[in-house]
Amino acid sequence: MFMVKVDVEENDGVLVPPANFSTVEDGIFRSGFPEPSNFGFLETLNLRSIIYLCPEAYPQENMDFVDAHNIKLFQFGIEGKTDSSSTSIPSYTVTQALKVLIDVRNHPVLIHCKRGKHRTGCLVGCFRKLQTWCLSSVFEEYKRFAGVKWRANDLRFIETFEVMCLRQCLYSIIYQYQGYGSNKRRLLYGEEGIQKPKIESI
Amino acid sequence: MFMVKVDVEENDGVLVPPANFSTVEDGIFRSGFPEPSNFGFLETLNLRSIIYLCPEAYPQENMDFVDAHNIKLFQFGIEGKTDSSSTSIPSYTVTQALKVLIDVRNHPVLIHCKRGKHRTGCLVGCFRKLQTWCLSSVFEEYKRFAGVKWRANDLRFIETFEVMCLRQCLYSIIYQYQGYGSNKRRLLYGEEGIQKPKIESI
Repeated sequence: MFMVKVDVEENDGVLVPPANFSTVEDGIFRSGFPEPSNFGFLETLNLRSIIYLCPEAYPQENMDFVDAHNIKLFQFGIEGKTDSSSTSIPSYTVTQALKVLIDVRNHPVLIHCKRGKHRTGCLVGCFRKLQTWCLSSVFEEYKRFAGVKWRANDLRFIETFEVMCLRQCLYSIIYQYQGYGSNKRRLLYGEEGIQKPKIESI
Repeated sequence: MFMVKVDVEENDGVLVPPANFSTVEDGIFRSGFPEPSNFGFLETLNLRSIIYLCPEAYPQENMDFVDAHNIKLFQFGIEGKTDSSSTSIPSYTVTQALKVLIDVRNHPVLIHCKRGKHRTGCLVGCFRKLQTWCLSSVFEEYKRFAGVKWRANDLRFIETFEVMCLRQCLYSIIYQYQGYGSNKRRLLYGEEGIQKPKIESI
């Protein structure tokens, strides 16, 4: 007889992705806060790093998980806004997170906040601008994950996020950027400067 | 000065993904019906094939696109139900589509129907069962793309989709299945049969 077996580790062979889990790009994932019941699933992603966007300390059991799997934890403490009229996300912090995100040495990477809607949605939205997606598609994707909880403030943040910030992210990459379709979009260094990237002061 | 250029092809450098576009897995994408304005974006995916789930003929401009890029078109004509109480999706057809979907020789592959909600959502849902995702996560993903248009019929279809059908898909793969995390889930052939896969008759 011919047999087929599928290797799975836990939950009676059933894998439980974190809430709002999805693949963003090859090597980039997004989700809500991972619970211990999701650890079996996360193991299958072979993560090299996690971008965590909340100011709260990482729970001990999650710390144990990242330690056990040698995962680098990058924490960027962005306040979760419950009031939609409150101050918006700090663009400097998002820029810093983007630098980590687009660095392929950190891939595979999981981005998460609490629900995987607002903070994660803003970071992914800025990443899509970097990929030159049209704004309506960026908003469509943001809303797909935020659902009825989408915030006009977040869309404004993504829309007004400065191209200059994005450029600063790009400047900080020393080697070639692994973009969409892998061999289509790459950083091309201008003839003027093969030397170490630096940001021009104005 | 240090220069960064990003290669883009059209729409004033802006790429327009099809409606409801997303990455399902490394090498598997989903979306609504691609319009000519999306062709520039689709080029960046370097598609090897498209799984088209509607019975309607492919429009000439889309045919020209797949021909020009040497993309294999697999059409599985599933009726789009506007009435939620109508008969459900034919599981045999979904099984056939799954066979194409999980065959890595067809990757990168784009799955699409009209809106990328119901027919595409059912196929992706069955694929997630094959990946041993828990049902609540499968439903969450289905609803994320269907939004308020989600159909109880579709969820029932996914839930009751027979493991036997899935197994038949697996049996049909001659070489190893490239699963989640690439080296975690693979087909392991039982000691009894290294020979050509066959389905036992009961």
